[in-house]
Amino acid sequence: MADVDLAGTIAALGRRARTAARAVAPTSREQKDRALRIAAGKLGDAAEVKSILAANARDLENARARGTGTAMLDRLMLDEKRLAGIANAVSEIADLADPVGEVIAETVRPNGLRVLRRRVPLGVIAMIYEARPNVTVEASALTLKAGNAVILRGGSEANETNAALAKVMQAALAEAGLPADAILPVPTTDRAAVLELLKQTETVDLVIPRGGEALIRLVTENARVPVVQHYKGVCHLFLDATAEQGMAIDLVKNGKLQRPSACNSLECLLVHRDVAREILPPLARALAAAGCEMRGDPEARSIVPEMTAATDADWGTEFLDLILAVRVVGNLDEAMAHVTRYGSGHTEAICTRNDANASRWTNEVDAACVVVNASTRFHDGGELGLGAEIGIATSRLHWRGPMGLESLTTMKWQVEGTGQTRR
Amino acid sequence: MADVDLAGTIAALGRRARTAARAVAPTSREQKDRALRIAAGKLGDAAEVKSILAANARDLENARARGTGTAMLDRLMLDEKRLAGIANAVSEIADLADPVGEVIAETVRPNGLRVLRRRVPLGVIAMIYEARPNVTVEASALTLKAGNAVILRGGSEANETNAALAKVMQAALAEAGLPADAILPVPTTDRAAVLELLKQTETVDLVIPRGGEALIRLVTENARVPVVQHYKGVCHLFLDATAEQGMAIDLVKNGKLQRPSACNSLECLLVHRDVAREILPPLARALAAAGCEMRGDPEARSIVPEMTAATDADWGTEFLDLILAVRVVGNLDEAMAHVTRYGSGHTEAICTRNDANASRWTNEVDAACVVVNASTRFHDGGELGLGAEIGIATSRLHWRGPMGLESLTTMKWQVEGTGQTRR
Repeated sequence: MADVDLAGTIAALGRRARTAARAVAPTSREQKDRALRIAAGKLGDAAEVKSILAANARDLENARARGTGTAMLDRLMLDEKRLAGIANAVSEIADLADPVGEVIAETVRPNGLRVLRRRVPLGVIAMIYEARPNVTVEASALTLKAGNAVILRGGSEANETNAALAKVMQAALAEAGLPADAILPVPTTDRAAVLELLKQTETVDLVIPRGGEALIRLVTENARVPVVQHYKGVCHLFLDATAEQGMAIDLVKNGKLQRPSACNSLECLLVHRDVAREILPPLARALAAAGCEMRGDPEARSIVPEMTAATDADWGTEFLDLILAVRVVGNLDEAMAHVTRYGSGHTEAICTRNDANASRWTNEVDAACVVVNASTRFHDGGELGLGAEIGIATSRLHWRGPMGLESLTTMKWQVEGTGQTRR
Repeated sequence: MADVDLAGTIAALGRRARTAARAVAPTSREQKDRALRIAAGKLGDAAEVKSILAANARDLENARARGTGTAMLDRLMLDEKRLAGIANAVSEIADLADPVGEVIAETVRPNGLRVLRRRVPLGVIAMIYEARPNVTVEASALTLKAGNAVILRGGSEANETNAALAKVMQAALAEAGLPADAILPVPTTDRAAVLELLKQTETVDLVIPRGGEALIRLVTENARVPVVQHYKGVCHLFLDATAEQGMAIDLVKNGKLQRPSACNSLECLLVHRDVAREILPPLARALAAAGCEMRGDPEARSIVPEMTAATDADWGTEFLDLILAVRVVGNLDEAMAHVTRYGSGHTEAICTRNDANASRWTNEVDAACVVVNASTRFHDGGELGLGAEIGIATSRLHWRGPMGLESLTTMKWQVEGTGQTRR
């Protein structure tokens, strides 16, 4: 009986979202941006901040009581700085051009037909996510700006924080005269609601899961609606024979230490034999000083004996923690073979002064983002100029890489004639 | 036991396709085009033509013996003219620019990072299709040109024709020095093979079903790999109050009569009350002369009593035959409401001299292709300038509308720095 109720609740939620999506789709840029600016204002308002952080403190307390790990706690935690960052992301989204209506391509055929391809909203997007509560705001803002409705299903660990944030977003919609149903939290923490949501092929156009690998697999394996996902970020950096020592150490430190819990942080370092003796010792000192463990292959350990011995399980592992796997390789091909075998198709970087090797890396490595002489941490919608991202896709269909506004639209073909018929 | 063998066979097929896809991805435009030109030549070669048409005659004979309907027989039938059209499509694909490597977007960030988005091959594409044997050739040519491998699973009714055509394509690959596994027919007509193919998430990146609604549903409901599909084409034409009589009649005749078995043919005519008395009588004479049945609502029948009475089941039906549903409406909004309720999101056309109404139609009607003053039959990759199409997508994810080369690619982000780290 409970199941029947749940199925009915979720189906009704989908229909409400579909109705809201139809109402939002033709909305002017001005009206959508007004809602976003109101939301950004609220997220910087002292009383709202206090209330959101209080909700977050309750979630953190519960999480700690359950023995939640460091990486998860970091993802869950909000402070004034992070909240200001979230508000800023919403303002930046308001500043972005409206993708809806944009002419992607235009041609005139020999028979005089004018053919346009125009960007139109995708429709209803369901976000299923864990931990990071900024997703509640940024996903709402991005889907709204692209003319869509969103159904939000955050993790129970962030329940209070997400509820506080969704309330702010819905209030902003209402103040701007937009349908509040354009941002719809799932009204139950029942896990079965997720499975119901994944069946709503009539009303949900896309599901975007964000979170740990188990969540992504659960969604992908049970979804009857289309899914765009990333499983995990097992990101590599290859220090080529011509890598400059200072740059190499900076890139490793930034990739590994700046935010180990992020999917674009560095998990495995591949070092060319020719520079291993020069770079590994000072690098090991720098990482040790930051409390980072290195797990090396025998050759790396012959240079830095303090390293832990890497096991087979360390290659291809997303540590999301202060642990770095290290392997010495003989050449570019060995490095690329390692990445093909163990990489997750997320972010793969090379540090080199050899243009030919940089070019081979960017052409031959198959990943959502290939990087030359920069930190893997740049694979992020904000950093790459999209304003904000709703996730990073390592799947190949529809979108790949940081998902900004454009990834939340589809297209429509428009044919304009003067009575042409086909022969 | 047989099932285990089949699962193994299909899994092995997927792995062969993946290996071939890796080999084809970095291939030069010249080498891919060479294979396509060799294939086009073979499809025009007298001996090959004779052998292909003989295979097709055997398929047609079997189909007739099974009592196959007219629409299906038309889809299955090849003659010299159609074969020349297929060969021509392959040549046109060779002439098209190579989408692989194309820079879609390029920016330089404030910190000096150069950010590129480049088009890369999608990987392995599985085509599951019925009847039309041209799919065997055109899908192979398009997937190859976009740097992919294709697994082909045609309908058993076209088994001999498809085998003859696939043989030609594989011979062309071999002559051009490309891996023959880049075009891989499923080696069994066992229907369970389709279900196995739909499970190959490790090796198949996209499934494209083409055929009747039952096939599309079977694929969509059972696929664990991503699907881009169209269910059916229930295409409408709305004759607005300002529709010019001659143009209106031409568009209806072309839409309905030119190839009734095509998905972009016209199934339902909506006529503004103000022009119904002027246009319907001469239109009815023209359609009757062509053997086309009209099924009208009461108002249409009050003008042309010879029409059959339409039933509720006729609205939203894809006849694929010489039958046209006809309804009189009072204004543009009524016409759009009918299309929203009964349309399939494929092709929706208006005939009007009123620019405001044309603009409302193109903006507000939600379909893969919206048309003003032209035949619905133009919604086709070749006609819209894509060279050839692998299908028409009415789904919203990844692609919508005629699927040409661009639809068979994904993208890769490329970040080039000088040692930048993230703050």
